[in-house]
Amino acid sequence: MNDAILLARAYLSRVAEPPAPALAEFVAEVGPVEAAARVRDGRVGERVAAETGVRRAVHRAEDDLAAAAAAGARLVVPEHAEWPAEAFAAFAASGSAELAPPVALWARGPVSLQALCAQAVAVVGARAATGYGAHVAAELAAGLADRGHTVVSGAAIGIDGVAHRAALAVHRPTVAVLACGVERAYPASHQLLLERIAASGLVVSEYPPGSVPARHRFLVRNRLIAGLAVGTVVVEAGLRSGAQRTANDAASLGKAVMAVPGPVTSGMSAGCHRLIREGALLVTRSEEVVEAVTPIGMHLAEPPPPGSRRPTDGLNEAAALVHDALPVRASRDTRWLALEAGVPIGAVRAALVVLERRGLVEHREGRWRRRIVEPA
Amino acid sequence: MNDAILLARAYLSRVAEPPAPALAEFVAEVGPVEAAARVRDGRVGERVAAETGVRRAVHRAEDDLAAAAAAGARLVVPEHAEWPAEAFAAFAASGSAELAPPVALWARGPVSLQALCAQAVAVVGARAATGYGAHVAAELAAGLADRGHTVVSGAAIGIDGVAHRAALAVHRPTVAVLACGVERAYPASHQLLLERIAASGLVVSEYPPGSVPARHRFLVRNRLIAGLAVGTVVVEAGLRSGAQRTANDAASLGKAVMAVPGPVTSGMSAGCHRLIREGALLVTRSEEVVEAVTPIGMHLAEPPPPGSRRPTDGLNEAAALVHDALPVRASRDTRWLALEAGVPIGAVRAALVVLERRGLVEHREGRWRRRIVEPA
Repeated sequence: MNDAILLARAYLSRVAEPPAPALAEFVAEVGPVEAAARVRDGRVGERVAAETGVRRAVHRAEDDLAAAAAAGARLVVPEHAEWPAEAFAAFAASGSAELAPPVALWARGPVSLQALCAQAVAVVGARAATGYGAHVAAELAAGLADRGHTVVSGAAIGIDGVAHRAALAVHRPTVAVLACGVERAYPASHQLLLERIAASGLVVSEYPPGSVPARHRFLVRNRLIAGLAVGTVVVEAGLRSGAQRTANDAASLGKAVMAVPGPVTSGMSAGCHRLIREGALLVTRSEEVVEAVTPIGMHLAEPPPPGSRRPTDGLNEAAALVHDALPVRASRDTRWLALEAGVPIGAVRAALVVLERRGLVEHREGRWRRRIVEPA
Repeated sequence: MNDAILLARAYLSRVAEPPAPALAEFVAEVGPVEAAARVRDGRVGERVAAETGVRRAVHRAEDDLAAAAAAGARLVVPEHAEWPAEAFAAFAASGSAELAPPVALWARGPVSLQALCAQAVAVVGARAATGYGAHVAAELAAGLADRGHTVVSGAAIGIDGVAHRAALAVHRPTVAVLACGVERAYPASHQLLLERIAASGLVVSEYPPGSVPARHRFLVRNRLIAGLAVGTVVVEAGLRSGAQRTANDAASLGKAVMAVPGPVTSGMSAGCHRLIREGALLVTRSEEVVEAVTPIGMHLAEPPPPGSRRPTDGLNEAAALVHDALPVRASRDTRWLALEAGVPIGAVRAALVVLERRGLVEHREGRWRRRIVEPA
């Protein structure tokens, strides 16, 4: 990892309150190092300035990285293999300002975020869970974890805590996404639970060390729970609840939205019933969740014969268009690519993430070029 | 009412075990009087013979009508204004042999079946209902009845009985569809309930007086519950239940299918959850049921200006095609109409029911002609 990139993203992680869509776009265009330098100096457009003006003089990147290290945490950045690029490609593709991707993630735990989230499922729900909801959350989370689907949740009391504990009980790592610094024990009663999560799985946050769990951060955090997972299950939720926000974010990100029904006489199931009426899939057990998040034919498809495999096989349409548009001998920025490929700029960014992970493109200072790759 | 038609349909009601699709088709083509005469003499095709051969020598039409009258019941036939022609048009349109319409209905009670069923909703469910299911069924049925939607059900113990009682408790008529003669008290423990239903609403059956509730008749009967209503709500149902059959029949008839969720830990809600996963609308209270069965804009639409109203306004496509195809000076049978209008024969029959109710067509001996109607 390039230290300059790490320091730049650590600085950017503190400089703007998430979600910061203009900053995310700016970083994607000019790269993190140049973006950090220009934010620091105020050489940015109006929208980026609005997001970064207040804190741009706060230079604590080295301190934050040191504080994280002292707490056993690290900074995970998009330039790193550990970045959950495929899961997060949905952020750029969503085109929603509310769903801006994080500039980096602080992570505490011994495993790769990317590896843990490849088939992760978010299990979320009400703090004021009923005994029924807690029972179902435990059954679902245990069943999912046991089938190799990492349980992602928000470490709150109620459904979240039950889901994490059920995954740990079957000896599977689980991911807690916090609305404060990863070294904090919040809620305080979950101090031991968070330690156990970080011992085998991950505690992650987009807020730098020391950040406090301000009220609005819980809602903003929910987009990361939805974003890290391939699908979200709401176990219990009142009509106004954070879990519904997570479900809405998952839907906007194009991910599977599922909800568990309950008695119509229970206010804690009212949010789930509304979600189902609005199109969420009703699920009653973990097998149904697995079925919903497993791509059709995933277990059935034969791999293609070796001779026919090309590096561009299996790309989605936008990625194929962007790849075709990119020159080999010259580099281009995302705006040029959007115009040339006829693909919306958000989808261009998502496509570039996928192409870069496959080693098909490379970038330097915010400009992209195609890499020459021999067929396998 | 023409006595010959009544006697003919009373005879046909006993001669074939429902559902009798070939007989229903035959009666629609040649009319009930000729159909009865030819069935009696065995002058019928192979399919009708298969349905009527065993009992065609049973001549009890007059006795059955007398027995019905003695029990305070009457025979309702398609030629009568009381026939629920619009609700039952779905049978012909379904094209399914299992969903053959009844040749007649025996009815006990002081009100018109057609009037009661114009906005009826079927509320059905498990015999082995839980306290939760009984509570929800009572709330739903009372709410529907109170809003003028007749509750139709099967008078069984469990959900059915609760639904009927809840309607009676808010002083609204309710319709019980039996799998035996309308003079029978089945189940025996519902003798008083059936008397109360017949006092203000209707007890109906396609089985002539004295018929016993044989096992298969409960499933066959369920199509009439679905057919009389504009939509069906399943409150509780196991994975193998008659209520699911009613829901499937409602779906095949193109009517609204709704189900009430419950705890995923309850086997009595498992059938409802499966129905919702397969496309039924999740409903939690009577307002949601009313919304689902009320045509969009029904309360909002302005009537068209008087000058523009024509007798054929608002006909569906099949009815308009059949109407256009029908000559004024000559009469044609349904097969000719199907060929000429390019409409499936089942849909032709459904269209003719609608057209006849509007006074746009008339028939004689199984042949149809257009009536001349002046614009309003």
